[in-house]
Amino acid sequence: MNSTNFKTWAQSAPRLVAVAAGRAAADLVIKGGTWVNVHTRECLENHDLAIADGRFAYCGPDASHCVGPETEVIEANGRYMIPGLCDGHMHIESGMLTPAEFARAVIPHGTTSMFTDPHEIANVLGLAGVRMMHDEALMQPINIFTQMPSCAPSAPGLETTGFEISAEDVAEAMAWPGIIGLGEMMNFPGVVNGDPQMLAEIAATQNAGKTVGGHYASPDLGPAFHAYAAGGPADDHEGTCEADAIARARQGMRHMMRLGSAWYDVESQITAVTEKGLDPRSFILCTDDSHSGTIVNEGHMNRVVRHAIECGCDPVIALQMATINTATHFGLERELGSIAPGRRADVILTSDLKTLPIEHVIARGQTVARIGICEVDCPHFDWPRHARNTVHMGPAKTAEAFEISAPDGANTVRANVIGVVENQAPTKALKADLPVTDGLVETAGDVCQIALVERHRATGSVVNGFVSGFGYKGKMAMASTVAHDSHHMIVVGTDRAMMAQAANRLSEVGGGITVWKDGAELALVELPIAGLMSDEPAKTVARKADAMVQAMNECGCTLNNAYMQHSLLALVVIPEIRISDLGLVDVTKFELTPLFES
Amino acid sequence: MNSTNFKTWAQSAPRLVAVAAGRAAADLVIKGGTWVNVHTRECLENHDLAIADGRFAYCGPDASHCVGPETEVIEANGRYMIPGLCDGHMHIESGMLTPAEFARAVIPHGTTSMFTDPHEIANVLGLAGVRMMHDEALMQPINIFTQMPSCAPSAPGLETTGFEISAEDVAEAMAWPGIIGLGEMMNFPGVVNGDPQMLAEIAATQNAGKTVGGHYASPDLGPAFHAYAAGGPADDHEGTCEADAIARARQGMRHMMRLGSAWYDVESQITAVTEKGLDPRSFILCTDDSHSGTIVNEGHMNRVVRHAIECGCDPVIALQMATINTATHFGLERELGSIAPGRRADVILTSDLKTLPIEHVIARGQTVARIGICEVDCPHFDWPRHARNTVHMGPAKTAEAFEISAPDGANTVRANVIGVVENQAPTKALKADLPVTDGLVETAGDVCQIALVERHRATGSVVNGFVSGFGYKGKMAMASTVAHDSHHMIVVGTDRAMMAQAANRLSEVGGGITVWKDGAELALVELPIAGLMSDEPAKTVARKADAMVQAMNECGCTLNNAYMQHSLLALVVIPEIRISDLGLVDVTKFELTPLFES
Repeated sequence: MNSTNFKTWAQSAPRLVAVAAGRAAADLVIKGGTWVNVHTRECLENHDLAIADGRFAYCGPDASHCVGPETEVIEANGRYMIPGLCDGHMHIESGMLTPAEFARAVIPHGTTSMFTDPHEIANVLGLAGVRMMHDEALMQPINIFTQMPSCAPSAPGLETTGFEISAEDVAEAMAWPGIIGLGEMMNFPGVVNGDPQMLAEIAATQNAGKTVGGHYASPDLGPAFHAYAAGGPADDHEGTCEADAIARARQGMRHMMRLGSAWYDVESQITAVTEKGLDPRSFILCTDDSHSGTIVNEGHMNRVVRHAIECGCDPVIALQMATINTATHFGLERELGSIAPGRRADVILTSDLKTLPIEHVIARGQTVARIGICEVDCPHFDWPRHARNTVHMGPAKTAEAFEISAPDGANTVRANVIGVVENQAPTKALKADLPVTDGLVETAGDVCQIALVERHRATGSVVNGFVSGFGYKGKMAMASTVAHDSHHMIVVGTDRAMMAQAANRLSEVGGGITVWKDGAELALVELPIAGLMSDEPAKTVARKADAMVQAMNECGCTLNNAYMQHSLLALVVIPEIRISDLGLVDVTKFELTPLFES
Repeated sequence: MNSTNFKTWAQSAPRLVAVAAGRAAADLVIKGGTWVNVHTRECLENHDLAIADGRFAYCGPDASHCVGPETEVIEANGRYMIPGLCDGHMHIESGMLTPAEFARAVIPHGTTSMFTDPHEIANVLGLAGVRMMHDEALMQPINIFTQMPSCAPSAPGLETTGFEISAEDVAEAMAWPGIIGLGEMMNFPGVVNGDPQMLAEIAATQNAGKTVGGHYASPDLGPAFHAYAAGGPADDHEGTCEADAIARARQGMRHMMRLGSAWYDVESQITAVTEKGLDPRSFILCTDDSHSGTIVNEGHMNRVVRHAIECGCDPVIALQMATINTATHFGLERELGSIAPGRRADVILTSDLKTLPIEHVIARGQTVARIGICEVDCPHFDWPRHARNTVHMGPAKTAEAFEISAPDGANTVRANVIGVVENQAPTKALKADLPVTDGLVETAGDVCQIALVERHRATGSVVNGFVSGFGYKGKMAMASTVAHDSHHMIVVGTDRAMMAQAANRLSEVGGGITVWKDGAELALVELPIAGLMSDEPAKTVARKADAMVQAMNECGCTLNNAYMQHSLLALVVIPEIRISDLGLVDVTKFELTPLFES
């Protein structure tokens, strides 16, 4: 049973009514649980649920009249019955997994609804790629809604994406069955300045009656912030402090607080509810970005809810922020997000509301996981050849491609260097004096080379630069086709020949991440789909990703899980300095900047 | 400015953004008020609002940058700025006023949005009548949304309406611009029993993404109630006690608590929030039915909010129940119901949150009322001739039409009598022994005659019966074309000739209410539109209605405002016994019953 053949409430109403009235038997009855009611914020002991056609037919004190000879009966034995958890905003690609494998990994954690923005694949494969993600999403046994990506490229004029998204694309996608709204409107300066394309995308979404996702990544809460709110975004997940949370809620936006693999924005903001006493209805929990390792080892939305509770939030309020608040935000409050008649029967059995063990997960009336084991098929989309063959960098690279010529006659150069910072997304704009040998600039100290290898149109272009902070020693290279946001290929290394080897290796396997040392490959994560995702299970991908991080450490990397820093080196919307296929970018000024000081 | 030419948020976004950013001037700025924020449940002192194109552009601490030379500035002087009030469910016809005159009457009370079910006109003029109400609603300077009537006739097989509403009519109406959902689904036994037409109407509404209004008028909270909830109604306003309120909210329905002219259902139910501590988001305030006198003398939604506060509700929570909760319920939370960017600029200035004086009302950015005086034009629809000419009872009546023949040879008869009860809608099924003179039954004691005069198709039909409880003395008659729900004509009297005079008088004036005593008319309320509504001002209609009640008293009526009882004598869905154009109806059994005991 999947979204494409799942009956609407209207289609199932005759049967739901008959079951509730006792004239027909339910498919499934859960008896004797504590109904966590997110509408009223109550825990109601000794209640039963009857389910038919994948929807709740009866939620009340006694469903005996709904039980027939064919009805499956589950004894809750007093356990809590909570609605399936909703992730209000996230990117599946961050897990390096396809929607199917992502679903298979999070189902045992109780996630039954996700609002996903396939922004990464949009940069690589455009609207067609978004459609593939959307189609695989609709094949799953849980509810995966697609937010149409709004900003590809993220930084027009500063990078070249594989494909671009237009306002016409947005308008077209609004008619697809699984599109729930517009993905995060990252071009906040564009909105504030009245950029016609950005406002046209928002208008297309509003005219379709759908939800406009926001992304206001600035601490400025003055007129620019107000202008952004006036532009139409209905939510935001970029806040990092209590004042951010309060400001957004007051503007009638839903404020999303995220706990991702690298985002820790719940603890600093949930005090808006727990201490300042704001009405919780405007707050939503989400993950934004989860690595496969986090999902395998720590959890997904259950991890977020648990964390919110640890931060002092009332458990039922925390659950509201991951169920009904999310559903209401997306116009789905009559469809999911609570245990109530007519809604999709997404329910979790748990014996403790604080530690939230996910013991039994039911999605659309079907048992999908028990005690951490997924028990349902998550069908794979038949990804076409061109989606599995997206690394087009032209002829194999040689060491020469990574040579950096010094200005004529220079013996040393003063270079602009990208400085990575541990556990942070922003970089520092550094300077370094580097030696010149035979007219070529050599690296020195902690400075190594970085190259942005064009891989969408086989132009053969390589943009070279310098990066410091990883701590790499000896001869090494690391390459990745996960290279936010335009997802060319980022190669970092201390040795030009090995940089060529790493790049060629990714071309050979169709994308992913590879780490090389002393002429040998230490680790490889194959990401054949768009160079971003694997269709192997999350555990396999997590193991490979762990090995990749271990290999980085063997190359001398001293930072905590610096894969994130590697993959963000081309993210030309976050300060201070980045690299793109067009050159070195000063992100404080949104303009290209030379490699060398003159 | 009205709904039909009011720009959408998307259309106005470029200007709203420019105003918020300080690049363009606002039309109106309100300075230095206390912003009642219904999203966060806060009162924020010293805030400004900037308005452009009838929408909020900026809501924040200082709108100086939005003020230009042409900007109107209103000094709030610390007063509260609350969102315009929303009436979540109501019938305009109950005020005996057209939508325009109703709007003109409630605007000074701060009502800026109404969700109206033109159920009465649907019975008289069918879909065409609904469309006329809908069209006049859209002409108004406030937001009047139409709920498509679901049940005409209310009791199929027990009455004949002027027109019927079909599932196809519902589907057709869902595409009209002002239709917000389905009007109260009164045929709750139909839903519970899986009646295909009722489920088809609900399905048409759900398929259009609109809200299904509920009406479950039964104290039974067992399987029938659960089956009704499973059928799809999204709200209900028929609860009368705390248990009703709690039960509906738990089922994920929005529970509407009403204070109408004759409904007092807030005090007994609001304890679900004030004492039981349920999350208030599921609760909405409404009026359902307001007479013009109530509106003129007591208020409208301001009266309901004030009453909720008097019942112990926190003022901001009470306001949420009359603003954002209502807007969210109807999928309009990004359009109205709060003071926040992009929303329709509907705002009230008041100096006290408890007594709620309505000092200044702004709707869509325009001042519409100050200190109780409406300052805006409420345009009248050009009601066509056939809508003003709906009393078709055939040739003038004579006393003979009201003669009740006794069974052959009887000297006395034992008759089934409708017993009216003071201040209550239900009637009592009584028996009375009545004398026979010349083969005709005569009345005696407090028993007088009642007649249901067919007036939709000029069939000439008159159904005669007996009623008691009014206390009428001497020779009198009272007739009304407000005769819920099918709105034929109800004539009550002690004298057959005068009953004929009263009926003929209503035929002459095109409908309304008339009271006669000793051969002279004591009072007349003309209701020329559908026999239900006047297009005179509310004050005029209220004065005439007062005179009508006074005239009833002069005829000996001892009950408190028994006009309601008179107009409900044909309401064949409320027990115990009623009259329809098909005969006497036993509403405990939903079947016709003989006038005389055999």
